[in-house]
Amino acid sequence: MRMYDIIHKKREGGELTGEELRFFVQGFTRGEIPDYQASALLMAIFFRGMTRRETGDLTLEMARSGDTVDLSSLPGVKVDKHSTGGVGDKTSLIIGPIAAACGVTIAKMSGRGLGHTGGTVDKLESIPGLRTDIPRQEFFDIVKRTGLSIIGQSGNLCPADKKLYALRDVTATVESLPLIASSIMSKKIAAGADAILLDVKVGSGAFMKTLEDSRALAQEMVRIGSQVGRRTVALITDMDMPLGRHIGNALEVQEAVEVLSGGGDSRLRDLCLELSANMIYLGQRAETMEEARAKAAEAVSAGRALQKLAEMVEAQGGDPSYIAHPEKFTLSPACVELSAPQTGYITRLDAEGCGLAAVELGAGRETKESSIDFGAGIVLLQNKGDRVEQGQPIARLYAQSEALCRRGKERFLASLEVGELAPKRGPMIVERIAEEG
Amino acid sequence: MRMYDIIHKKREGGELTGEELRFFVQGFTRGEIPDYQASALLMAIFFRGMTRRETGDLTLEMARSGDTVDLSSLPGVKVDKHSTGGVGDKTSLIIGPIAAACGVTIAKMSGRGLGHTGGTVDKLESIPGLRTDIPRQEFFDIVKRTGLSIIGQSGNLCPADKKLYALRDVTATVESLPLIASSIMSKKIAAGADAILLDVKVGSGAFMKTLEDSRALAQEMVRIGSQVGRRTVALITDMDMPLGRHIGNALEVQEAVEVLSGGGDSRLRDLCLELSANMIYLGQRAETMEEARAKAAEAVSAGRALQKLAEMVEAQGGDPSYIAHPEKFTLSPACVELSAPQTGYITRLDAEGCGLAAVELGAGRETKESSIDFGAGIVLLQNKGDRVEQGQPIARLYAQSEALCRRGKERFLASLEVGELAPKRGPMIVERIAEEG
Repeated sequence: MRMYDIIHKKREGGELTGEELRFFVQGFTRGEIPDYQASALLMAIFFRGMTRRETGDLTLEMARSGDTVDLSSLPGVKVDKHSTGGVGDKTSLIIGPIAAACGVTIAKMSGRGLGHTGGTVDKLESIPGLRTDIPRQEFFDIVKRTGLSIIGQSGNLCPADKKLYALRDVTATVESLPLIASSIMSKKIAAGADAILLDVKVGSGAFMKTLEDSRALAQEMVRIGSQVGRRTVALITDMDMPLGRHIGNALEVQEAVEVLSGGGDSRLRDLCLELSANMIYLGQRAETMEEARAKAAEAVSAGRALQKLAEMVEAQGGDPSYIAHPEKFTLSPACVELSAPQTGYITRLDAEGCGLAAVELGAGRETKESSIDFGAGIVLLQNKGDRVEQGQPIARLYAQSEALCRRGKERFLASLEVGELAPKRGPMIVERIAEEG
Repeated sequence: MRMYDIIHKKREGGELTGEELRFFVQGFTRGEIPDYQASALLMAIFFRGMTRRETGDLTLEMARSGDTVDLSSLPGVKVDKHSTGGVGDKTSLIIGPIAAACGVTIAKMSGRGLGHTGGTVDKLESIPGLRTDIPRQEFFDIVKRTGLSIIGQSGNLCPADKKLYALRDVTATVESLPLIASSIMSKKIAAGADAILLDVKVGSGAFMKTLEDSRALAQEMVRIGSQVGRRTVALITDMDMPLGRHIGNALEVQEAVEVLSGGGDSRLRDLCLELSANMIYLGQRAETMEEARAKAAEAVSAGRALQKLAEMVEAQGGDPSYIAHPEKFTLSPACVELSAPQTGYITRLDAEGCGLAAVELGAGRETKESSIDFGAGIVLLQNKGDRVEQGQPIARLYAQSEALCRRGKERFLASLEVGELAPKRGPMIVERIAEEG
C-alpha cells in the first residue's frame, strides 16, 4: 500500500477502504508517513468529503491510535458528555451530579481551558484540595463508590488526533465536517463510554456560528456514533451570549451549586435539566424523555444532586464545605463594577468577547503554559436582552490587580452594546438530534 | 503575510495576489515554508485552479527563483522550443539547424533523457568529441558566430520548480493544468528566449493521452506566454507511434542528418518543416507562415541546414565528418532482427513501449544515475499502419549483448500488434494554437 495512491484516490473522489485509513492513521502516528503527504490528503478530504463508513473507520482508527480506557468493570451504562466549547459553560459540574443522582454511571475525563473557553478540570481545581490527576484504579474506585468522578485526561489518548489536529491547524484544513466530527468522537470513544451526549453550541461564541453548520456537525457526529456502535444524542444549544451569570473558575463552581440548589439563571437551569434528562435516558434510567426530565428535576429539588457533587468533591480530596457554603470561595482582591453606559436594552453581549475578557482578568489561558487565577472572572448582573437604566451596575470583574481589571473591562465593553429596541433572544435549546431510525 | 492565510484563501476559491505568490515561492525555495503547507496549497490549487493572472505570476516567480539567462547580448529574436516529451523525438537536432540557417538565433539549453523519453543532450554527445557542458561566454560566442548552439542545462535554474515538482510527485498534485504549464514555462522563461515554440504531444506515448487534455495544456501555456510577454505558439502533434524510424542516440543523429539531407520518414519530415516554419515565423524571419514554410524547405533542399548542423558540431568540439558521413557512427555490437509474427497491418506500435524497449537495450536511463550506450537502440523498418507479410523484418535492435537484445525484444513485442484491418493513422500535426487576438 502506498500513501501516494491513497491521496490520489481521495483526490479523484474515491472511497477509502478501512485498510487504507488504518495504513494512513497508523503510519502517520508512527511518523512513517510524512506531514506533507498527510496535509495533501487532508486537503483532498476537505474538498471531497468522506462517506459515513469512511468517517466511522477514521474515527475508530484514531481512537485506537493510543491508550483506550476500558470502563467495562464499572456497573451500568456509562454515559459521557461533550460540549463543543462555550463561555460560562459549567454544565458538566451540574449535569454529572444530577445524572449520577439518578443512577447513571459517570466516569468522565475532562480538559483544561484554552483561549476564550474554560475547562471543567480548572473549575474543579478551584475547590481547595480537589485532585483531578487521579490514577486509573482510584478513579474506578471512586466511580464504583459514588457513581461519579470527573478527572483530567491522562495517558496517551488519541495521539493520531493530536498530531493530525496540529497539522490541520497550520494547513487550513480544520473546517472539514468529517475531520471535525471524527476528531471529537475519537476522543470520546477512546475514553470508553457506552453512550455519548453532545452539546453542540451555535452562535457568536461558538465554533459553529450558524444553525446550518452546527446541525451538520451534530448530524455527522450522531452518524459516527451509530456507525461505531455508541448510542449518541446531540443537542444544539445557544452560545450567542454567555451561559449563565458567572465566568471564571471558582465563580462557576458557585453558580453550579446555585443551580443544583434549585436556583440560578433560568436559561442555564433549563439547559442543565434537558442535558441531564438526555443522560438519564441514554443511561437507561428512564423509559421516555418525559420520565427522564421528571427524574432530573426531582434529583435537584430533593437535594440529591447537590449531595452527589459534595460526595465527588470529597472522594477526590476536595473540601466539601465549599459546596455547602459556596460563599467560602475567595475571589480575587481587585474588583471593578461596570455600569450601563445608557438606558435601553442590552442588544449584544458577545460570548467570545466575554471569554476573552475573562482571560485578560486571569481566569483563562492564552497558551497551554499560562497559569490561572481561580478567583478571577466576571459576574454578569444583567445579560443580553435585559432592560437597563443608565448607571445601573451590569457586571462585576474580579482580578489580582486594578491594572488587570482595566484590561478586562476594556475587552468586556467592546463586546457590549446597549440599544433602544429589545433584541430577539433565541431559545436555549435549539434542536435535538438523535440516531436515525 | 502568513502561509496559512494563503492556503485558506485558495481553498475558498480566492485569487492569490502577486505578492502572495512571491511570498510562497520565495519562502518555499528558501525552506522557510514547510513542505506540509506547500502540499496543502498545491492540493487546493488542484481543486480550485488558478486564474490566468495567477498562473502568469506563479510562472514568473518560479523563473526568478534561481539563475536566469540573459540572451540580450545576442543578435535577433531568440526562439526556444520545448517538447512535452516523446519517443524517437529528434526534432531539436533538425529544426534548430533549419531555423538557424534561415537567420533565427537559437541559443538553446536541453535536457537529458529519463525513462522512456530521450534527451537532446544525450543524442548530441553521441557525436565523438562534442561537448554540451559549455561555459556561458563560450556558448554566447558560438551563437554569435554560427547562430546556433545547443548545450546542457547549467547553473541553478528554477530551483523553486525543482523543489515543487519533487513535492507534487509524492503528493498526487502533478495533474493540475496551471501547475504543469507554469512548471514548463518557468524553465523556458528562465532560459531567456524572446519567443517560445511548444510541441505538445498527444497519444499513447505522451504525457497527455487525449486531444482534449493536450489542447488544454497547450492553451494554458500559450496564455502564460502572452501573460508574461513572450510570444508563444503551440503545435499539438501525434505521439501514438514513435516519431520517425530511429530510437536511440547515435541512431537518431543519423536520422536527423537523413532528414536534413532531404530524405527520411515523411511524417517526421513534415513535423520538422512545420516546427521550423513556426520558429522562423516567431523569429521574425518571415512575414507569413507560408513564407516561413517556403524558407524552411529551401534551407533543407539547398543543403544550408545540414551545413549549419555541421558548423555547430564543430564549434562545440565535435567531429563534423560524422554529419557528412553518418554511417561512421559505431552501433552496438549485438543485433537482432524482428520479423512480423503474421501477415496483416501493424495496428499498434506503442510509443511508450518502444521507448521502454530502448531503455532495456541501453539507449536510455531508468534513473538519473544510469549510464547510456550511445550505439544502442531500435531501427523501425515498418511503423504503425504499414502492411507486413509474415516473416518480413520489421525492426532491428542494437545493444551491447545478446541478453540485452532479448530483454529489449520482449518489451518491443509487447507493444506491437498485427491485425487484419488497416488502422486509422491520425495526422502528424493535429492543431496549432497561437496567442489570442
